[in-house]
Amino acid sequence: MIVILKRNPDPSQLERFRGWLEERHVSIHPTIGMNQTIWGLVGDTSHLDINLIAALDVVDDVKRVQEPYKDANRKFHPEDTVLQIGGTQVGGGNLTLIAGPCSVESEEQICEIAKAVKKSGATMLRGGAFKPRTSPYSFQGLRSEGIRMLSAAKELTGLPIVTEIMDASHLEYFDSVDVIQVGARNMQNFELLKVLGETRKPILLKRGLSATYEELLMSAEYIMAGGNENVILCERGIRTFETFTRNTMDVSAVPVLKQLSHLPVLVDPSHAAGKYQLVTPLAKAALAAGADGLLIEVHNDPEHALSDGPQSLRPEAFDRLAGQLQRLHEAVRAQ
Amino acid sequence: MIVILKRNPDPSQLERFRGWLEERHVSIHPTIGMNQTIWGLVGDTSHLDINLIAALDVVDDVKRVQEPYKDANRKFHPEDTVLQIGGTQVGGGNLTLIAGPCSVESEEQICEIAKAVKKSGATMLRGGAFKPRTSPYSFQGLRSEGIRMLSAAKELTGLPIVTEIMDASHLEYFDSVDVIQVGARNMQNFELLKVLGETRKPILLKRGLSATYEELLMSAEYIMAGGNENVILCERGIRTFETFTRNTMDVSAVPVLKQLSHLPVLVDPSHAAGKYQLVTPLAKAALAAGADGLLIEVHNDPEHALSDGPQSLRPEAFDRLAGQLQRLHEAVRAQ
Amino acid sequence: MIVILKRNPDPSQLERFRGWLEERHVSIHPTIGMNQTIWGLVGDTSHLDINLIAALDVVDDVKRVQEPYKDANRKFHPEDTVLQIGGTQVGGGNLTLIAGPCSVESEEQICEIAKAVKKSGATMLRGGAFKPRTSPYSFQGLRSEGIRMLSAAKELTGLPIVTEIMDASHLEYFDSVDVIQVGARNMQNFELLKVLGETRKPILLKRGLSATYEELLMSAEYIMAGGNENVILCERGIRTFETFTRNTMDVSAVPVLKQLSHLPVLVDPSHAAGKYQLVTPLAKAALAAGADGLLIEVHNDPEHALSDGPQSLRPEAFDRLAGQLQRLHEAVRAQ
Amino acid sequence: MIVILKRNPDPSQLERFRGWLEERHVSIHPTIGMNQTIWGLVGDTSHLDINLIAALDVVDDVKRVQEPYKDANRKFHPEDTVLQIGGTQVGGGNLTLIAGPCSVESEEQICEIAKAVKKSGATMLRGGAFKPRTSPYSFQGLRSEGIRMLSAAKELTGLPIVTEIMDASHLEYFDSVDVIQVGARNMQNFELLKVLGETRKPILLKRGLSATYEELLMSAEYIMAGGNENVILCERGIRTFETFTRNTMDVSAVPVLKQLSHLPVLVDPSHAAGKYQLVTPLAKAALAAGADGLLIEVHNDPEHALSDGPQSLRPEAFDRLAGQLQRLHEAVRAQ
Repeated sequence: MIVILKRNPDPSQLERFRGWLEERHVSIHPTIGMNQTIWGLVGDTSHLDINLIAALDVVDDVKRVQEPYKDANRKFHPEDTVLQIGGTQVGGGNLTLIAGPCSVESEEQICEIAKAVKKSGATMLRGGAFKPRTSPYSFQGLRSEGIRMLSAAKELTGLPIVTEIMDASHLEYFDSVDVIQVGARNMQNFELLKVLGETRKPILLKRGLSATYEELLMSAEYIMAGGNENVILCERGIRTFETFTRNTMDVSAVPVLKQLSHLPVLVDPSHAAGKYQLVTPLAKAALAAGADGLLIEVHNDPEHALSDGPQSLRPEAFDRLAGQLQRLHEAVRAQ
Repeated sequence: MIVILKRNPDPSQLERFRGWLEERHVSIHPTIGMNQTIWGLVGDTSHLDINLIAALDVVDDVKRVQEPYKDANRKFHPEDTVLQIGGTQVGGGNLTLIAGPCSVESEEQICEIAKAVKKSGATMLRGGAFKPRTSPYSFQGLRSEGIRMLSAAKELTGLPIVTEIMDASHLEYFDSVDVIQVGARNMQNFELLKVLGETRKPILLKRGLSATYEELLMSAEYIMAGGNENVILCERGIRTFETFTRNTMDVSAVPVLKQLSHLPVLVDPSHAAGKYQLVTPLAKAALAAGADGLLIEVHNDPEHALSDGPQSLRPEAFDRLAGQLQRLHEAVRAQ
Repeated sequence: MIVILKRNPDPSQLERFRGWLEERHVSIHPTIGMNQTIWGLVGDTSHLDINLIAALDVVDDVKRVQEPYKDANRKFHPEDTVLQIGGTQVGGGNLTLIAGPCSVESEEQICEIAKAVKKSGATMLRGGAFKPRTSPYSFQGLRSEGIRMLSAAKELTGLPIVTEIMDASHLEYFDSVDVIQVGARNMQNFELLKVLGETRKPILLKRGLSATYEELLMSAEYIMAGGNENVILCERGIRTFETFTRNTMDVSAVPVLKQLSHLPVLVDPSHAAGKYQLVTPLAKAALAAGADGLLIEVHNDPEHALSDGPQSLRPEAFDRLAGQLQRLHEAVRAQ
Repeated sequence: MIVILKRNPDPSQLERFRGWLEERHVSIHPTIGMNQTIWGLVGDTSHLDINLIAALDVVDDVKRVQEPYKDANRKFHPEDTVLQIGGTQVGGGNLTLIAGPCSVESEEQICEIAKAVKKSGATMLRGGAFKPRTSPYSFQGLRSEGIRMLSAAKELTGLPIVTEIMDASHLEYFDSVDVIQVGARNMQNFELLKVLGETRKPILLKRGLSATYEELLMSAEYIMAGGNENVILCERGIRTFETFTRNTMDVSAVPVLKQLSHLPVLVDPSHAAGKYQLVTPLAKAALAAGADGLLIEVHNDPEHALSDGPQSLRPEAFDRLAGQLQRLHEAVRAQ
């Protein structure tokens, strides 16, 4: 940690600060410049509160030198984390394809989609049971009943299932769920993260709409600090000034997160774009940038007049895309 | 709702869409332009899913004409909402001054601050018990014990108390709390909002770091749709590209929210700026723009070498500011 | 254009608005809803000022139905624009690779790089002569002398040259330049765009740091409205809250701009990321998303101790990357 | 400047870096921490290129300790700059009120408005002659003819005039102009800034739509480095995710810019909000935060059916507002 002192600091305040640091076994290496004095702090600075120091009258600025996350940090864990989930692996060069509808609507619907996407090469099944909706007047999902239907589709196809949790009190319904998803809006629901840190279930942690990489990794750290190291990071689009797309997929998140952390990184192009025509180019871009896999919305619905969600592919389109993605994944890995 | 059709839409799909609308008792008023056909939809369109319609193959775009919130909408409730909380009123031309420390640290600390801020004219006492921290390694607050200390300060001074809730399961500790705060990171924790909607406690709802006005009002709507109309809106700074301040206080939120909604609007300049030198000018700006009041961090701590949080005023500074704000509030109201 | 009227509008003001529209040969198709009246305007609405209408007392909101750009709009020009520049083509399935240093430093430097990148498969040479620098104390480029050096490298290698213009008064120096670049900070320098519209040189128009797709296309429209249809769009990263990278490459810009417009779309991953380690994954992502080509910074400098700019590749690294990109381009096109 | 070295840096590269610094008369003060070595650089580091250093293989990160601007920096110029413009002063506790229409439309129009706003207490007259418009099909202003009309209004009323320049080649028309405005979109048109730095006219420099405070001050520095110290800073709203207002007025810019710089700071609430109903609360907020004055759009137009621009006040409304602002300015100054 580096502390930049104010010019002509009050000597007695400076002395108190020096004493406070020494009590904490932190030693001070001063650099006296022409205009400014800098203190390099040496020792275990991870427990010093940077905001507290920044607030001191004698301090002009404080800069952190080390990342504030440890368990998620590649520096202390150089090898890629690879998770074994049912019969499939996430990370380590495997292509993870998680497919399924935005919402579970019926057992028939989810089972049909599960069979279709499995045939196309999906490695896991997703479907929303507890749905975060911006309006209290919108459909809130089938909730625990939706998880029961997902479990039926899992039994039928053998695909591990992924679904979102919205509140720690719902955890009891997630026994048969293989991967628990934390949505973008809950990325900093710290009480939820703590509870998930006490489980040993794989957690798919989605990046918040305007979260930085460091904030995402700090939320992963919350889960890992509780002892659950099975965290999968997921880029799902950030909010930008562009209104043509719902959000803007940040493809740089893939190489950056893989550099900073050892955790697997997936991308959700369906939610990022909000338009099904963009799912194919964005899915390819994510793989070309090195993503470990993708979440893709797939929706059947032969009988319903108002079929597709705005960002969903039909099973036939997913089948075509899955083949393209497998070939692209091989081509990128071969380089 | 206005639907802009694609050029040369598939006639049978168009027919199915027309039928689907008619089933929902929505009538269609077409406008046939040179390049495009537009359908104006008349009837109760509040239950139509705009994303579903946007996804139809025959539809180019859909635009909503009415706001998606009702209970929070000034159009259907023209008079200002005024809340009676203990002996004080929020809204309706009253100046609400909520003061106190970032975190409750001890009973002695909170009681001393409570006495000081009451003397200076504060109308409520705030203090953090459950603390949302980005790092799992930071102090997480005194939790239920902190609320007990706040209650002691309330008994001593008569000031109503405001403190943040982080999870619905903690509600049992909030009996003596007068106003329950929902933090910016939980603004879209919909399960929490639903639970708070079932209480009748006043809820201080902080705007998310990159939330729009409409999203804030939709979160208020979640609480109000549950039957709890005691909602106070709070602007606390949005995330921008500027790194000199922690966040950027959006002072326009005050007149805009008061135009769109009948709910009281407070501003928290301490969290917005993250620097105590900016609290005074930003507090004055908020009042000049018409805010119903302010949340201001105040911290005593004579014995502690590392006293102030970066955004806290000392009691003497708060005393000076409170006087200035009362005079400014009168001057603005007189115009 | 759709006009949403206020409830209970003043009848005489409404009459004047109706007359004003009729004078402009625009006819009105009203839709009278339960809560609101909507006017669909039919006729040539492209010359109506949307802000003027929005400002009327009787108007609640106005929504545009058609894009405000014409020459750049794919609706009126369905085929891809393909530009012939020297012996190379931009657009139409060709892979454009524009390589070279951030700044031209000497004739020797630019000629060496030109030879190296040509050998690796670059189709054009780039190099900065007029340099937009945020500080007046930074090196401002070799200016016209830099263009002379670029021209020498062009003569030596036959590679067409691309360099940035910063002011219309410098146009006289650009005779030998094949593609004139407009930098992100000048994307809305409308006087410059008008002057470039009067030339017939290909213009590489970079997207502004926080410009929307529509704003980029409107700037292209400025050039095209002057009669110069030779415009190439370029995504070079947008400003976001992330500070780890310099900017955030918006890979969605590729498929969206190609959907909205017929103009070629290039991507500059070097400037977007500001870190050379990210150039390779981002370049691949751009191609996988369908970009017509890339701008990549390459810097030699064997003798200089402080060689690479933060975002530049060395020629050997570019050679490796160029081969990978050519294979990836073929793989993506084959799908 | 502080350089954080990589762990286990290559010794020969480190030696070359050390030599390179010593050649530049910069001495190195190392701090050797448990995990990282930090070099504090002492000497005149203002000419070191931070990006170049950041790009070195041995360097993990570089952090600047001092602001990169000098002439605009309050540290080296503690007293407020006060500009004498015609008979009025900008800065130093004076209230500057610049009023007038968005566009000059006719001599009659601008003269009438000039007389009206002078009577209400405006200290300068504004009006657009060269108009930056996002569409090439929109009215581009009366250009040099508009400046002639402004000059007539100046002669009539004695009010100094303010108008925008869009290209350095237009400077010849600005002889009679008292304050030359640089628009938000040209804030980083560095060639224009250099030309204005060679004049001695007061320059009203508007903050770019997504510029940071430091970037605004660096653009001021461009002008001042040329020898023109007559710069006025102007906050006019930043781009945010909110679409209800056109831009978001950043009221914190006022106290922050006044802390960092000695230059006067004005605010333009009309352009920030884009809605005339918000001009009054935002103008008051700006003054309460300590602004030296305001730019306010005022438009007459009795005969025209489509009168007000969306952000303009009528003269009577301005008259009322001007009185309120003068009283508020006195109240704020008295505190």
